[in-house]
Amino acid sequence: MLKMGDKVRIEKDGDSYVGILMPSSHEDFIIIKLENGYNIGLRSSNSKVMLVEKGQESSPTPLRQHIRKEKLPRVSILSTGGTIASRVDYRTGAVTSQFSAEEILSAIPELEDIANYNSRVIYQILSENMRAEYWIELARAVDEEIQNGSTGIIITHGTDTMMYTSAALSFMIRTPVPIVLVGSQRSSDRPSSDAAMNAICAATVATSDIAEVCVVMHGTTSDDYCSIHRGTRVRKMHTSRRDAFRSINSGTIGKVEYLSRQITTFADHMHRNDVSLELIDKLEPKCALVKYSPGASSDILNYFIDDKYKGIVIEGTGLGHVASDWIDPIRRATEDDIPVVVTSQCLRGRICDRVYDTGRDMLNAGAIEGEDMLPEVALVKLMWILANKPEDVRRLMRIPIAGEISPSTSMIV
Amino acid sequence: MLKMGDKVRIEKDGDSYVGILMPSSHEDFIIIKLENGYNIGLRSSNSKVMLVEKGQESSPTPLRQHIRKEKLPRVSILSTGGTIASRVDYRTGAVTSQFSAEEILSAIPELEDIANYNSRVIYQILSENMRAEYWIELARAVDEEIQNGSTGIIITHGTDTMMYTSAALSFMIRTPVPIVLVGSQRSSDRPSSDAAMNAICAATVATSDIAEVCVVMHGTTSDDYCSIHRGTRVRKMHTSRRDAFRSINSGTIGKVEYLSRQITTFADHMHRNDVSLELIDKLEPKCALVKYSPGASSDILNYFIDDKYKGIVIEGTGLGHVASDWIDPIRRATEDDIPVVVTSQCLRGRICDRVYDTGRDMLNAGAIEGEDMLPEVALVKLMWILANKPEDVRRLMRIPIAGEISPSTSMIV
Repeated sequence: MLKMGDKVRIEKDGDSYVGILMPSSHEDFIIIKLENGYNIGLRSSNSKVMLVEKGQESSPTPLRQHIRKEKLPRVSILSTGGTIASRVDYRTGAVTSQFSAEEILSAIPELEDIANYNSRVIYQILSENMRAEYWIELARAVDEEIQNGSTGIIITHGTDTMMYTSAALSFMIRTPVPIVLVGSQRSSDRPSSDAAMNAICAATVATSDIAEVCVVMHGTTSDDYCSIHRGTRVRKMHTSRRDAFRSINSGTIGKVEYLSRQITTFADHMHRNDVSLELIDKLEPKCALVKYSPGASSDILNYFIDDKYKGIVIEGTGLGHVASDWIDPIRRATEDDIPVVVTSQCLRGRICDRVYDTGRDMLNAGAIEGEDMLPEVALVKLMWILANKPEDVRRLMRIPIAGEISPSTSMIV
Repeated sequence: MLKMGDKVRIEKDGDSYVGILMPSSHEDFIIIKLENGYNIGLRSSNSKVMLVEKGQESSPTPLRQHIRKEKLPRVSILSTGGTIASRVDYRTGAVTSQFSAEEILSAIPELEDIANYNSRVIYQILSENMRAEYWIELARAVDEEIQNGSTGIIITHGTDTMMYTSAALSFMIRTPVPIVLVGSQRSSDRPSSDAAMNAICAATVATSDIAEVCVVMHGTTSDDYCSIHRGTRVRKMHTSRRDAFRSINSGTIGKVEYLSRQITTFADHMHRNDVSLELIDKLEPKCALVKYSPGASSDILNYFIDDKYKGIVIEGTGLGHVASDWIDPIRRATEDDIPVVVTSQCLRGRICDRVYDTGRDMLNAGAIEGEDMLPEVALVKLMWILANKPEDVRRLMRIPIAGEISPSTSMIV
């Protein structure tokens, strides 16, 4: 009788696959972990499965003593969970978050040449469970670490919602030091893991002169360099590739070569001590992001108005459009002091509601153009403005606060 | 006193701009149309505006007689509105839909070398007002034209929701001839308009052997070639660029060189008369597309369940995740026979809910993995399956029907 964890050979359609048998939640698929660390799923029909070797549990890596070196800068690693801090449990096949920040150091000894680290587990959650209260907790922890003398912050974070967290921190913290979010798309027990390279590049940026909230992740599918993305411009654009993160409507700030740790910058950025540390940590969580699709009932806007939401971001089509019957609810929201910000499901490009009739009607009803902000960033910004400067929301949503909008004195429409 | 339509010079910050004064809905912006056809918006502060010439209305192009040539194939042009069929009204500055298909022919005489045309105005709407009942009307018109002997169909369509319409037609019609959607990002009275080149390339594809529903639009920002996108794989990825349309999770079918009208194909495609004409024109419009964001209340799912929606597509994070508290409503929907399909806001890459705990819980609650389908395409497909094969929805949503999913016998996870 085969058990999970057994090494098996599967023969199917003339091909042969060897790997560790993993649990499968698809009745018609057999999942095995290949020797290169990837899981592979094969349809069970016409598959012949043979035992190669009975399974055994893998032994954990022993923890390494962290030796502090004089003259190296002091960096804080704040751990929040996610793949970079997770590994596959061979008995269940599930990826679970279980590495502490200290364990990351043990797994990636090269980090010790770059800085001395204080590590702190803020929480251990999968990033899809992230929400505004966690962003506040994290922002406060970052603020404390900088106040206590950290000259750079590394935040390990799940990749799913990293862009939302990086946007939230960008609005909540004015920082004199680098604040670097990093994650990995493949857990660190896989040969193809991006965890080590991303962490080393993140530490390099955390000890650099780039004093911004940024995301450092693989720039290509090779292990050549990581891209440095501005926290309000980055978006996860692929479910599984290691180079999933892309800057949208903006170039990257720069890149870090993996082997040489050389940083090249491509854009202006804030420098160390350009600003003093400031924390503005209030957020209004009751904001909604609504994606428009053809024929979608405008009742959804009335639902959010009736449920006393404080702000709404619409992800419209093209230059920022919705169907004509959405215009009345936009007016109703505006009259109820619920700002409605328009962004585009195109993701790239700028909103312009002055070209077509529908857009003009939307503006007349009170809609606020989201300029070239990502919809997700507009949502987080709205949460922040409504908690701190609600009286100025119409103006502030349309001007850059943390690099989230490209300034333009003239707009080509 | 300056009036809309007057030619003016604006001096601002040492620069000088000359153009036609256009209405502006932004109290702090003056909009003028430059001679190159672009509109430009300038902040009114510190702007000095001077009259150059009193405005006059532009005279319309005279209509051209369409001369039928023997031996050319018979193509139908179905007009639905949108920028390709619109122009700026100089008196109001608004872009309005007002070209009939016959007027397009008059404006683009090169079309007459490619085919003989029957033209038919199906409706005249801006594409953000598109909805399921219009897709049905359009599919029926396409079916009629093919039955009446058309050997190719061109549909002029607004770009905002073109991808939804192309997906809907892909599911509703099995076609023995090319069905080509085309639009333009800049109206045809502008020198930078993409209308003529896109229309000529569309006619070339409509007379080719590519018997599929496809979208033909600028492939680059130059006027060199148009890309031929599969109708279920294409997405508008920029609000204003002429090369806004991209194939996602799939290469393009091919390209058309503008000047030589040479088609090069890069992928397998259906050929003329591979299949017989078949119309399956029912759609279930009461389906919702819900985009997840961190902290979003799961009440939104209960709202759609209580309002008797027939199907829900979730745009989750990463590999297809939502917060843990969304799992109970997913189970509730499933128990109420409301299928819940999971797609990713990453847009690129495949859904895999077997890697992380949350995903496994979602599958156990009944969620259906949307594979590598675009969220918008999954919505349209769900509308089509629920109206025609509701009993088989779980299986059909996960296999390709019209090229919307990449088949894979093994899945790297």
